[in-house]
Amino acid sequence: MVNNISVEKAATSKIHNVDFDNLSFGNTFTDHMLVCDYENGAWNSPKIVPYGPIALEPSSKIFHYGQSIFEGMKAYKDEADGVWLFRPLENWKRLNKSAKRLAIPELPESHFMDGLTSLLRLEKDWIPKNPGSSLYVRPFMFASGTGFHASPADKYKFIIALAPSGAYFSGKVKVKIEETYSRAANGGVGYAKAGGNYAGQFYPTQLAVEEGYHQVIWTDDNNHEFIEEAGAMNVFVRINDTLITAPTNDRILDGITRKSILDIAQAEGIPAEVRKISVKEVVEAAKNGSLQEMFGAGTAAVVSPIAAFGYKGVDYELPEIQNSYASQLKKRITDIQYNRAEDSFGWRFKVS
Amino acid sequence: MVNNISVEKAATSKIHNVDFDNLSFGNTFTDHMLVCDYENGAWNSPKIVPYGPIALEPSSKIFHYGQSIFEGMKAYKDEADGVWLFRPLENWKRLNKSAKRLAIPELPESHFMDGLTSLLRLEKDWIPKNPGSSLYVRPFMFASGTGFHASPADKYKFIIALAPSGAYFSGKVKVKIEETYSRAANGGVGYAKAGGNYAGQFYPTQLAVEEGYHQVIWTDDNNHEFIEEAGAMNVFVRINDTLITAPTNDRILDGITRKSILDIAQAEGIPAEVRKISVKEVVEAAKNGSLQEMFGAGTAAVVSPIAAFGYKGVDYELPEIQNSYASQLKKRITDIQYNRAEDSFGWRFKVS
Repeated sequence: MVNNISVEKAATSKIHNVDFDNLSFGNTFTDHMLVCDYENGAWNSPKIVPYGPIALEPSSKIFHYGQSIFEGMKAYKDEADGVWLFRPLENWKRLNKSAKRLAIPELPESHFMDGLTSLLRLEKDWIPKNPGSSLYVRPFMFASGTGFHASPADKYKFIIALAPSGAYFSGKVKVKIEETYSRAANGGVGYAKAGGNYAGQFYPTQLAVEEGYHQVIWTDDNNHEFIEEAGAMNVFVRINDTLITAPTNDRILDGITRKSILDIAQAEGIPAEVRKISVKEVVEAAKNGSLQEMFGAGTAAVVSPIAAFGYKGVDYELPEIQNSYASQLKKRITDIQYNRAEDSFGWRFKVS
Repeated sequence: MVNNISVEKAATSKIHNVDFDNLSFGNTFTDHMLVCDYENGAWNSPKIVPYGPIALEPSSKIFHYGQSIFEGMKAYKDEADGVWLFRPLENWKRLNKSAKRLAIPELPESHFMDGLTSLLRLEKDWIPKNPGSSLYVRPFMFASGTGFHASPADKYKFIIALAPSGAYFSGKVKVKIEETYSRAANGGVGYAKAGGNYAGQFYPTQLAVEEGYHQVIWTDDNNHEFIEEAGAMNVFVRINDTLITAPTNDRILDGITRKSILDIAQAEGIPAEVRKISVKEVVEAAKNGSLQEMFGAGTAAVVSPIAAFGYKGVDYELPEIQNSYASQLKKRITDIQYNRAEDSFGWRFKVS
């Protein structure tokens, strides 16, 4: 338990200026944020302060050496105005896995959990209740220490900001299976939620968008032979009745939605396999009609059905099917998240 | 030519507080910096302002998605107080190569060159004349635009900051040839000076430091079979009388010191090869005595001789030799940089 999370309240609230019926993703911010500084070898107590600009020295290492990591979570409000999180300790654990790989000091559990819940209790009026909307929670951590020597910083900031948000994607997405660019190296930082993993995807994604796709499906950097992940989402493929997703490794993010889906599939009797999926297998399944579904899974988009994929200049449409695993799994997971169904897994976490 | 680079002068100078005889690397900053903003689809005119903190929204994409690139240069002062740069257009070209890969808008040549030279003329009293010291010049660019959607920002900042600096390394370095971690993926961003490429090296380097090494020599991420680069430096190996360095590719930075050394070697009649170097070849050469030298080459350290390398738990010492290529090449390149010798290559650039 962190004692005394100090609260400096904003002079006025912006909440009445917000149109909660027309929220985009991650562009509206609440009145307060949590800030926690690492200095002299330790994390200070978190503080809640008005949401506003951060002042940094030009030589702060975040600007030069990419020491930055983040997490993505959502807070949900049920019919009785109860406030919930979904498996928040998994985000804390992954934050610290990312921190270790990026040579950033790990954050104590109490700083994360007490900071998070204190902030959410203060800002609970900002949690949208409209269907498909939620309060997106963004914990992030970066090097604020200074100097042009390429080495880890001696000061860091951990911040939690909140953004009431609408859907991440609208409608089904068309993806390109990448054959030239790569997201992650063997022995690299692909499994971490490191800032640099995202910037490296933007240019190849722009090229894919110019060709009419929405997203890139990343493949291994050796031969572009196996499907890995979609950058902001893990990828699931359904061939006949079997759901398949790639095993996590040092190139693939250990997605919380991904592993929750695997647990739900098991509980619901959906046959699921965690194994390498070759592009060849997916293309052949598309050709012979056994490819039933593809979807992305991640916190922001939850479950995002894929309508078509492109590979070597050829587009393969996926069938429109009734009772898709995507819709079944999305309903099951969101019913747990919004406290609309029993949670036999113990994933739901009550904030207030 | 950029018209009207506005100058807002610092109220007082810090220069008299600086001990120019005891400078570390990149920890002392001059009175002013250059700032240039990208917004509404264009780069504004650069401005010179007092060196000081930058205020950014918590949702600025630099904190979340790693859109950051940089360059490293040095400004030199000759005996007659002439101020010089070394191949600055190469830095501008590489900045824009990095920008393109990171989906950051490219910077016009005039913004870079006029901004750089205007700032250096204003700050020329900060250029150290002590042997081994120089004014380190750090151009950098990052996403200041906001939002939690993982996509390129709509606003960026380009900044040049100056740091009078002593040597990057002191003495010879002992390196570890990496067998587990990797710096870059095929089809990734390794050739760019992207922030994320540096943060990913810190943890493996910490592990190497714990084992008694100073730096890691990176190898390919497929099999760790070939020598690539040293993270902040390219790597040269001398076997018998032949100098060898790896070819640049999408994993290896196109170092300006690296290519200058190759040109000098050719002019001086040093046999040089640009080809893949296997770790096996280097280990065998160390064992049979044909390995004469290894050194790193980069702007910060210029030429940095390697005293020993470790591989699979065995350390291999390099011989102490007279008339090393490292010392010959370092003298030749620094004589050009400091205007102590004729520059038949046309590399030196007069600032004032």
